[in-house]
Amino acid sequence: MELKKKLLEHDKRAVARLISMIENDDQKAFNIISELFYLTGNAHIVGITGPPGAGKSTLTASLAKKLRDLDKTVGIIAVDPSSPFTGGAILGDRIRMQDLALDEGVYIRSMGSRGHLGGISKATHAATRILEIYGMDYIFVETVGVGQSEVDIMKIADTTILVLVPGLGDDIQVLKAGIMEIGDIFVVNKADKDGADKLVLEVEMMLNLRKMENDWQQPILKTIAIQDTGIDILVNKIFKHYNYIKTTGLLKSKKLKCIEAELAEILRERFIDMVYNSNNAQLDLKEIANEIFNKKTDPYTAVDKIFFELKERSN
Amino acid sequence: MELKKKLLEHDKRAVARLISMIENDDQKAFNIISELFYLTGNAHIVGITGPPGAGKSTLTASLAKKLRDLDKTVGIIAVDPSSPFTGGAILGDRIRMQDLALDEGVYIRSMGSRGHLGGISKATHAATRILEIYGMDYIFVETVGVGQSEVDIMKIADTTILVLVPGLGDDIQVLKAGIMEIGDIFVVNKADKDGADKLVLEVEMMLNLRKMENDWQQPILKTIAIQDTGIDILVNKIFKHYNYIKTTGLLKSKKLKCIEAELAEILRERFIDMVYNSNNAQLDLKEIANEIFNKKTDPYTAVDKIFFELKERSN
Repeated sequence: MELKKKLLEHDKRAVARLISMIENDDQKAFNIISELFYLTGNAHIVGITGPPGAGKSTLTASLAKKLRDLDKTVGIIAVDPSSPFTGGAILGDRIRMQDLALDEGVYIRSMGSRGHLGGISKATHAATRILEIYGMDYIFVETVGVGQSEVDIMKIADTTILVLVPGLGDDIQVLKAGIMEIGDIFVVNKADKDGADKLVLEVEMMLNLRKMENDWQQPILKTIAIQDTGIDILVNKIFKHYNYIKTTGLLKSKKLKCIEAELAEILRERFIDMVYNSNNAQLDLKEIANEIFNKKTDPYTAVDKIFFELKERSN
Repeated sequence: MELKKKLLEHDKRAVARLISMIENDDQKAFNIISELFYLTGNAHIVGITGPPGAGKSTLTASLAKKLRDLDKTVGIIAVDPSSPFTGGAILGDRIRMQDLALDEGVYIRSMGSRGHLGGISKATHAATRILEIYGMDYIFVETVGVGQSEVDIMKIADTTILVLVPGLGDDIQVLKAGIMEIGDIFVVNKADKDGADKLVLEVEMMLNLRKMENDWQQPILKTIAIQDTGIDILVNKIFKHYNYIKTTGLLKSKKLKCIEAELAEILRERFIDMVYNSNNAQLDLKEIANEIFNKKTDPYTAVDKIFFELKERSN
């Protein structure tokens, strides 16, 4: 197939095309992943998360630039719809991103919003697979992080970077207590702002309070991504973490968890599809909702009935 | 059944017990909802959402107090695990909440975290049903809101209050642009803080920019919840909104959407249960993930196989 051949020939337009097909749920794209699945699993997947305004996209762009200098190829997927990769970036940033976008060794893609199912969507997983097949050495997955999304990113990333920023107020700091488990590497970005050292100390204290799950000492780094300050050390720590999870066998267990999350996502989407796009009139959720509204049935009894009918249908 | 009888006799302990059973996925509780479902659908469900630190719980407590003065009964469900209802509240707040908790006409419950499926969980929906059966006039559902959760709350609430607060920084303000669709009523809480008037103006501007979907003019109110300032007007607007959606037929369509969301949640949880807790060895997701890791299959082919087997099983 033409598209498959182009992907194998490292034609970036094939990547763009395939990810668009994935977003449109075009089965052909998923078939290509199935056929070329043996080429997946080799990229280092790095999750970048943190509160809005922490400078995640600028940091990602700066990391990508650095990795290109080291002759590594980089894919970037911004899951967050409000990401500067889709707009909203300050001018200097935009120029840098355009430079990156023209580079054959870089592919940047915004994946719209996360699925209605909350997790990293089937489409995002699939886009990662396409970038792996294309041969990217590094794949960055950027998500805005307040709440569920940081937990989700752990399921796709080998290495997760939690980006914090001084001056987001105490309320945000409180939130952080719950997400300390997530970062393999902590970055205090915009480190030239007031409160950076205090934030580093706070993170250190929180990390010291909790018991370690393994002997990876989570580093806390200061960066000023817009000036590329601190990026060398960060890249170094990313390499180091990868090496650590590889030698300890953690990489395999992380990849397995990622595959499980991907499977669960595909299963759920398939199931929803089966229920919502069914031609079977008895599965008309709107009609059932109406019956429940009119107290002719209740949600639990209705679902019992739906499951019974799904089984009947598959006979 | 004893518990069912106690619930009908307005014994608050029955509510506590049933919601705990719901959280433990005890089928008996869901059976009681099924049996008493004809008593549901009469409460005014008010969603309270907004960024962390906006004072949502204090506002909810203040609203509850006011509604009690008007002889209305109030249920409160805090979906957010970091809610002050579970801890973290400042002292004055805690005392107020304890007062509320002792009142037979008030029931406060924290529902732990949202389900792994992102939306308002089946358990939260069910807890709302229990409170409706108990006979609460008002049910407040409080969720922390940055991202998906505000959209979720729209699916359960008849009236949604978006609580904002001055001084969370420009980054948070940017986020707001995307969530302006959600509020039926906007509240700028902690209105004695610097920037309150500016925030009101910004919200007004954003609301003026977008086209109205109906002729409900979303009010923007200033409150200082901790001092009960502005709560009278807010309660008034809540009444007014309920009256508006009732007379225009919007209430019915909102209730129908809520039921659909509830159905989808129950369906999904049931499906996940079927896949994960299956005794069928062929549905062992860990084993399948291992095969995928070893490139013996790929996620899409594997899911095809799972669906085929689910159908076989149900034969």
